[in-house]
Amino acid sequence: MTPDALEKLDREDTLADKRELFALPQNTIYLDGNSLGALPTAVEAAVGELVSQQWGHDLIASWNKHSWIDLPVSVGEKIAPLIGAAAGQVVCTDSISVNLFKLLSTALSLQPGRRTIVSQKDNFPTDLYMVEGLAQMLGPERCQLRAVDSDALLDALDDDVAVLLLTHVNFRSGQMHDMRALTAAAHEQGVLVLWDLAHSAGVVALELDEWQVDMAVGCGYKFLNGGPGAPAFLYLAQRHQNIVTQPLSGWMGHRRAFDFAPGYEPAAGVQRYLGGTPGILSMTALEAALDVFANVSMHDVRAKSSLLTQCFMELVQESALDGIRIISPAEPAQRGSQVSLSHDNAYAIAQALIEEGIIVDFRAPDIVRFGFSPLYNSFREIGLAAESLARIVREQRFLEPRFQVRSRVT
Amino acid sequence: MTPDALEKLDREDTLADKRELFALPQNTIYLDGNSLGALPTAVEAAVGELVSQQWGHDLIASWNKHSWIDLPVSVGEKIAPLIGAAAGQVVCTDSISVNLFKLLSTALSLQPGRRTIVSQKDNFPTDLYMVEGLAQMLGPERCQLRAVDSDALLDALDDDVAVLLLTHVNFRSGQMHDMRALTAAAHEQGVLVLWDLAHSAGVVALELDEWQVDMAVGCGYKFLNGGPGAPAFLYLAQRHQNIVTQPLSGWMGHRRAFDFAPGYEPAAGVQRYLGGTPGILSMTALEAALDVFANVSMHDVRAKSSLLTQCFMELVQESALDGIRIISPAEPAQRGSQVSLSHDNAYAIAQALIEEGIIVDFRAPDIVRFGFSPLYNSFREIGLAAESLARIVREQRFLEPRFQVRSRVT
Repeated sequence: MTPDALEKLDREDTLADKRELFALPQNTIYLDGNSLGALPTAVEAAVGELVSQQWGHDLIASWNKHSWIDLPVSVGEKIAPLIGAAAGQVVCTDSISVNLFKLLSTALSLQPGRRTIVSQKDNFPTDLYMVEGLAQMLGPERCQLRAVDSDALLDALDDDVAVLLLTHVNFRSGQMHDMRALTAAAHEQGVLVLWDLAHSAGVVALELDEWQVDMAVGCGYKFLNGGPGAPAFLYLAQRHQNIVTQPLSGWMGHRRAFDFAPGYEPAAGVQRYLGGTPGILSMTALEAALDVFANVSMHDVRAKSSLLTQCFMELVQESALDGIRIISPAEPAQRGSQVSLSHDNAYAIAQALIEEGIIVDFRAPDIVRFGFSPLYNSFREIGLAAESLARIVREQRFLEPRFQVRSRVT
Repeated sequence: MTPDALEKLDREDTLADKRELFALPQNTIYLDGNSLGALPTAVEAAVGELVSQQWGHDLIASWNKHSWIDLPVSVGEKIAPLIGAAAGQVVCTDSISVNLFKLLSTALSLQPGRRTIVSQKDNFPTDLYMVEGLAQMLGPERCQLRAVDSDALLDALDDDVAVLLLTHVNFRSGQMHDMRALTAAAHEQGVLVLWDLAHSAGVVALELDEWQVDMAVGCGYKFLNGGPGAPAFLYLAQRHQNIVTQPLSGWMGHRRAFDFAPGYEPAAGVQRYLGGTPGILSMTALEAALDVFANVSMHDVRAKSSLLTQCFMELVQESALDGIRIISPAEPAQRGSQVSLSHDNAYAIAQALIEEGIIVDFRAPDIVRFGFSPLYNSFREIGLAAESLARIVREQRFLEPRFQVRSRVT
């Protein structure tokens, strides 16, 4: 992996011109799009217009005039093709945490006689915390969490299991599940599957409909670049719609919200998963951000993502750095769009990289994460990142005391 | 109420200069701040800086550098003095609907042996819908809704009632409850009180601590002017904190969110009511919008609000308009910051007013709402609104067919 070879990959990159759609700071290599996606420049104008013209000038009329009222559905429909979903199954609303609560409740309601939610011990914590909250509320007769190691997932599926809750790409290791195979295996046991797409939507080629996925949640602010704390989305397969209600039955999920009728009547379809008034500023930013995916094939995105992670892993291996271990899977099909390295001084190494303009992040206890966004990262950048890493580790620069100072958010 | 008298009131108005802090369209009298508050001009720069500099340039570092991580708490603390709450009791998060779910669950947990939630039949629908969702989830042995007429509220409080859920100012009539008296009456029966401040926060002088209120939720986008779908807030009195958990136990409410620990441990205090990643765009807009309240006494705001509604009611009465009935209470202490008129052709009258630049709204089945925002509405404006209304009703202009066309959002 010479600089020349990397340059050649950039020249052959059919997505290379997408980088122009993003505002990226000078002298920075941003490898943290798996935590907060970069700013698509179109968002600045869209948000400016929203605030000054739509809110400031058109005021309340904008709910109709600028179709604010449609945003949860229209943004959902804009996300749908990126995850392989036909129309009528995705809405943009709330946070992943809140959407998990709605869908886990739905899964339990759809599966009378089954009360267990199986998940993976090292799932993203909020996914497990939300199950804990639901289980505590419903009591052990109605809901239990069974969290197991990833190699014990299939064995954990018995006839008490209502739903298997998994994150497609693990936030620490970057390990990616075989969504199709696990979904099929769960279905054989009569178990529904709820996938958290936080680290795969917008960067992995997903086929939720084709793979018979039951439910999914996903994040607006990672690879979809919707801005900090962008609203999340949820997917509920057509075949599971209109059978049960969900407990967070707010007015925007009512069949006729503006009748202000006394009794709750759920809207048809996935719209009943809406609740309170949608956050129009955040949703407008996400709506504009999604335009960078226009005419982009998710297969091309995934192909470049796999090549970026592969090249970076090769570069790290070639460097043979003391104490550095690659913990992301070597097999491309088992890897998301990040490469995670472990090291006893991972936190300090991440800080040293950041000081050199290589923006990565740390995950406790000992992981440095390198996230790759195929729409704005280049092969040249990963070459420079690997060089920087090698220098920091070889020269033990991470031992400098300033790199040990912990910030609140890591 | 002559134009001269109104002009005199404007000259004597100590809040008159606050109007300069808002961007309001020309040739428009905006009387819908109870639905969507006008744009404080400072928001444009704050949101622009957030998007271009903080997100676009500083990227992930902004969670620390620009204290994004503190926003739910710091914006909560900025709202606290407006509602008479000491520090440590308010957070800004989610929607009113979702916050109601968290606090209603909390109330049930704090009141073992009591399962009933009493509310008012004509409460804002989402408040009742959320109780329905909770009751359906928990089953009748653990949660029941008892919705009664407003004059039967006290009689409905018995020893099975866990919490009384009321909206302070009714969205249809503008009728305002005596929060202090009802809270005290509920406490005598061992009942907690959860107040929805959607139509009172930012316009009524509230003293939640002094009045011994237990819990409250409120809206960011009405009289707090935080922008369309701004995040909501919730208040939990210090004495009820740290006793129970709440079911939507997302990672931002964890004691050490960035440890990514496997088990949920609730944060101390009101912070455990946070869940998913906060929407930084929407919260930044609200944060900037709240600056218009700097050095403003809520008692002055309330005094002007009462005078605005009183003058408008007098003007309407003087006009003696056929078929128009004032349904907001005549007694100032029983009235929020809106005047609601009923008429068989209310929808068309609202549309005719809007065509003349008087922005009001309609609420089914027969109500035109006039909302008054003391920080940007003048007495001259209400004189012009009353004149316009009189002309439309006397000339029966509302019969023109174009005013009958219904829009989706009313």
